[in-house]
Amino acid sequence: MSCRVPREGLRVDPVKVAVWGYGSMGSGMAKLIVGKPGTELVAIIDGDPAKVGKPGAGAVIVRNDPDRALAQTRPDVVLLATSSFVADVVAPIETALAAGAHVVTIAEEMSEPWAADAGLAERINQAARRAGRTVLGTGVNPGFILDTLIIALTGVCQDVRYIEAHRINDLSPYGPTVLRTQGVGATPEEFERGIRAGEIFGHIGFQQSLRLIARAVGWEMDEVKEERIPIVSRTRREARHVTIEPGQVAGCEHRAVASAGGRELIRLVHPQQVLPEAEGVQTEDFIHIEGTPEIKLTIRPEVPGGIATQAIAVNMIPKVLQARPGLATMAELPVPAAILGDIRSIASSVVSGGITR
Amino acid sequence: MSCRVPREGLRVDPVKVAVWGYGSMGSGMAKLIVGKPGTELVAIIDGDPAKVGKPGAGAVIVRNDPDRALAQTRPDVVLLATSSFVADVVAPIETALAAGAHVVTIAEEMSEPWAADAGLAERINQAARRAGRTVLGTGVNPGFILDTLIIALTGVCQDVRYIEAHRINDLSPYGPTVLRTQGVGATPEEFERGIRAGEIFGHIGFQQSLRLIARAVGWEMDEVKEERIPIVSRTRREARHVTIEPGQVAGCEHRAVASAGGRELIRLVHPQQVLPEAEGVQTEDFIHIEGTPEIKLTIRPEVPGGIATQAIAVNMIPKVLQARPGLATMAELPVPAAILGDIRSIASSVVSGGITR
Repeated sequence: MSCRVPREGLRVDPVKVAVWGYGSMGSGMAKLIVGKPGTELVAIIDGDPAKVGKPGAGAVIVRNDPDRALAQTRPDVVLLATSSFVADVVAPIETALAAGAHVVTIAEEMSEPWAADAGLAERINQAARRAGRTVLGTGVNPGFILDTLIIALTGVCQDVRYIEAHRINDLSPYGPTVLRTQGVGATPEEFERGIRAGEIFGHIGFQQSLRLIARAVGWEMDEVKEERIPIVSRTRREARHVTIEPGQVAGCEHRAVASAGGRELIRLVHPQQVLPEAEGVQTEDFIHIEGTPEIKLTIRPEVPGGIATQAIAVNMIPKVLQARPGLATMAELPVPAAILGDIRSIASSVVSGGITR
Repeated sequence: MSCRVPREGLRVDPVKVAVWGYGSMGSGMAKLIVGKPGTELVAIIDGDPAKVGKPGAGAVIVRNDPDRALAQTRPDVVLLATSSFVADVVAPIETALAAGAHVVTIAEEMSEPWAADAGLAERINQAARRAGRTVLGTGVNPGFILDTLIIALTGVCQDVRYIEAHRINDLSPYGPTVLRTQGVGATPEEFERGIRAGEIFGHIGFQQSLRLIARAVGWEMDEVKEERIPIVSRTRREARHVTIEPGQVAGCEHRAVASAGGRELIRLVHPQQVLPEAEGVQTEDFIHIEGTPEIKLTIRPEVPGGIATQAIAVNMIPKVLQARPGLATMAELPVPAAILGDIRSIASSVVSGGITR
């Protein structure tokens, strides 16, 4: 185990960032990086032939040769947005670590990768430690609303008996791929078939959020149950990518419940649908902690998914730069914070569990 | 700068805690410690002759000999609840560090001690580093609602233009000392005289919260203005420790505004009064972030002050046990989390920026 010397004073060089995966999330993060003082977008990597060779954010050319791109540009951090799944991101993470970069990924399963594959998670953890770098999975959810924010709220509780939270959002801004995985536009029968076939799966992240919460507070869960219920529309709902007729599925209400010894501990509910307001449903994030004290928190409307996921991935860069090497989760790093000044001053302000001034 | 070896695996010994300052907050924290698996309350220290020699929480006898008490009981952590001010807690913090203990204090000014006295803060920072221990100031506010929670919310923002937050609470549970410092029961004229004389001062913590937020996001503030406005009652309000007649002061609306170059960045408003519902005012915590995205968060009713301050001080123990040595703030440590299982498993779960399993 090596010990990195804390950085005193202001870092002079800009923080060099590569974006790997140049879809909707990756391109949003790249634009953010270009606009943040103290950062430099040094590489964009994507496998899509339609994008390769063309200029992306900040006129950086999209490349399809990750090893060489990273070796030539030596990023401090790779922002990875290629897949939702641990199994898919192990290889790019190892490539980034080998090039000496920290990694922040929005792969949902990486917010708590042991849930999906403990072996792969440990492999990433060891690779990160050997490289002296940190790997973090984050995003708005999993990563913040239904886990980090809940954990933070329990921090002002003497005791907690039960946690219930829901996130009601609107799928209208999303494209055909996301809509399909939520069953949008299907008949109720097609929805059930899609669930059984694994083609409709609702939210990715409940297992991760539940484990993040349980471990942070020291709860042992012995059972997690998930349900996916079609939200059948009673009205006509017209969105950019889809029109839903009455009787068709407008989305998926995905629920997850964690219990111990038959006692329900945490219930997370995430109804995702197109245009919920068509039936008078207000979008919101809501957290109810039954404990001492009781806490009821509402964010209305909900924190919007795409914008916030891009933001939190970029905003965690200064935290990751200063973290101890290894595979980290949001529950172990300092609270996220917007980057509104030079990233170098933010990344230099914390040096030892305390502050140097 | 020494490098502490991360602790792998489960700690066997209980976490030994001393409570220094056995008033309302200290005794609440002591009771919490007695009830948490994996902790042991080893000492209670207080200077009040009415308490010394008598049993406190867990039948631990209250002592008035801090040096000997700490040397004999060797706590891992001292919970310090003797004063609101940095100048008052430097000596006990140094005593605790000299005895080898980490320190968590609810002294409001310690949530960002540089605001009150940069020299004393640096003295504490150096003492903590030499001792290889961590010192943290926390509480519900300052420490959470109007700073840590705001910072965390900005973490999902791409940009922030302006932050406004208020905390509307009820002073009824508080005793005569707190009520007096808020001007409760005074005439409007007495209130103004009390403010000028420094006997009525409203909330302690705005300077700290504003600096915590500004530094976390990288904002430079060049001006902070505070206002203290009497809340003159229009109704009769009857509480346990005070009865307020119409025309008398029910509390103090304390406001603080941070600006840069004439542009307002952060506005924090904290009206503290006895029985606000007597005039239809609902208690709540409210945070509005004008940015991308815009976020409006409401906690209703507000997180209650005393219970939550005791909770967060105890709940930060596992974070402090694993922090790098020095003077820390809530913005640099992992998000707080309730302790609902054995504190030793929580304190052992994070070892390297990541997790060991």
